[in-house]
Amino acid sequence: MNGNDILARLGETIDSRKPEAGGDPSASYVAKLFHKGLDSILKKIGEEATEVVLAAKDGDPAKLTYEVADLWFHSMIALSALGLKPADVLNELARREGLSGLEEFAARPKG
Amino acid sequence: MNGNDILARLGETIDSRKPEAGGDPSASYVAKLFHKGLDSILKKIGEEATEVVLAAKDGDPAKLTYEVADLWFHSMIALSALGLKPADVLNELARREGLSGLEEFAARPKG
Amino acid sequence: MNGNDILARLGETIDSRKPEAGGDPSASYVAKLFHKGLDSILKKIGEEATEVVLAAKDGDPAKLTYEVADLWFHSMIALSALGLKPADVLNELARREGLSGLEEFAARPKG
Amino acid sequence: MNGNDILARLGETIDSRKPEAGGDPSASYVAKLFHKGLDSILKKIGEEATEVVLAAKDGDPAKLTYEVADLWFHSMIALSALGLKPADVLNELARREGLSGLEEFAARPKG
Repeated sequence: MNGNDILARLGETIDSRKPEAGGDPSASYVAKLFHKGLDSILKKIGEEATEVVLAAKDGDPAKLTYEVADLWFHSMIALSALGLKPADVLNELARREGLSGLEEFAARPKG
Repeated sequence: MNGNDILARLGETIDSRKPEAGGDPSASYVAKLFHKGLDSILKKIGEEATEVVLAAKDGDPAKLTYEVADLWFHSMIALSALGLKPADVLNELARREGLSGLEEFAARPKG
Repeated sequence: MNGNDILARLGETIDSRKPEAGGDPSASYVAKLFHKGLDSILKKIGEEATEVVLAAKDGDPAKLTYEVADLWFHSMIALSALGLKPADVLNELARREGLSGLEEFAARPKG
Repeated sequence: MNGNDILARLGETIDSRKPEAGGDPSASYVAKLFHKGLDSILKKIGEEATEVVLAAKDGDPAKLTYEVADLWFHSMIALSALGLKPADVLNELARREGLSGLEEFAARPKG
């Protein structure tokens, strides 16, 4: 399996669920989230982040895998809501890694 | 760029920062997080999830890209702490997509 | 109205919903949360914190009041799960204020 | 100690740290948060909520008390930023309790 393939493919499926693409809120979970609006998508991100924390505290690898998948998936819905694609995030990660072998993460100024 | 490449590469770099791999907390942000322990990693996930929410509410695509990159990056550190790799999450996402074209996300039972 | 009265009273009602106090999960929201277990309570805290963030970003005072009430309420359920009372938190806040007129909040060492 | 007293008093101290009240960001933690802006306050709420989750998962009552105090304290800063007082939240909690002995929490419609 190729990581970009699955993320890119999920990103395209998510985009196809947007109201302007004809997504059907009664038939699709993602279309329903788009229909409910940005806040509903963002609430899920807060929820799933907490579930990641709980799974990691439990030291449960299977549950952590599951919850991180949920968190990334809902992050992709938020990206789509703002017209972005998973590749934008991958490019940002690649850019940072290229700059300094990860250490930019430590040095960068934060708001 | 290939998504799996960058995620897999980042995952390997993160793994190399673990204490048992000789990561140096004084030289590496990631090694420092591992050194502080799991709670410090998980606090960052809570923080970065909130920053994703704020960036999305601001409708700021560049900021959202940046914050989702932060969130995914710190998720990968939590994965590494439990012996997992980004590919485990990508496989889980691929599995769900394969099952039902995303709609498993809606149907699945949650705790 | 007296703040301690309402918080203390809510704390007592919450305590009365615990399984060992005979709380009925089919009749009470709080008893149901206790019955589901600590993780369910903590997920609500993550959710409600995100809703506080969203309400504040919207600049909506009525919604913020509502969501902070939700957040504090679910915090009290977590306190109760560990055998604590709202007064324990009020005492901690009073202690800090007494020490230094709030500025201990800035100076305190954090993990 | 009277709960309303401490919350009301903290609320007043927080209000006095606002820029328009002459709060000095170089001398006061709260004034600095107000100076940095709403997002900085809200990031703290996300952070502190995660720390509440971690403390509760650790089953550590002293730490939970401390972290809930932090969470409520930063909630009060957000309330102040929107012109609200702790009493507004206490009134909302009292209103709900009065309606139905807490059970409104379960029945209420949510977005």
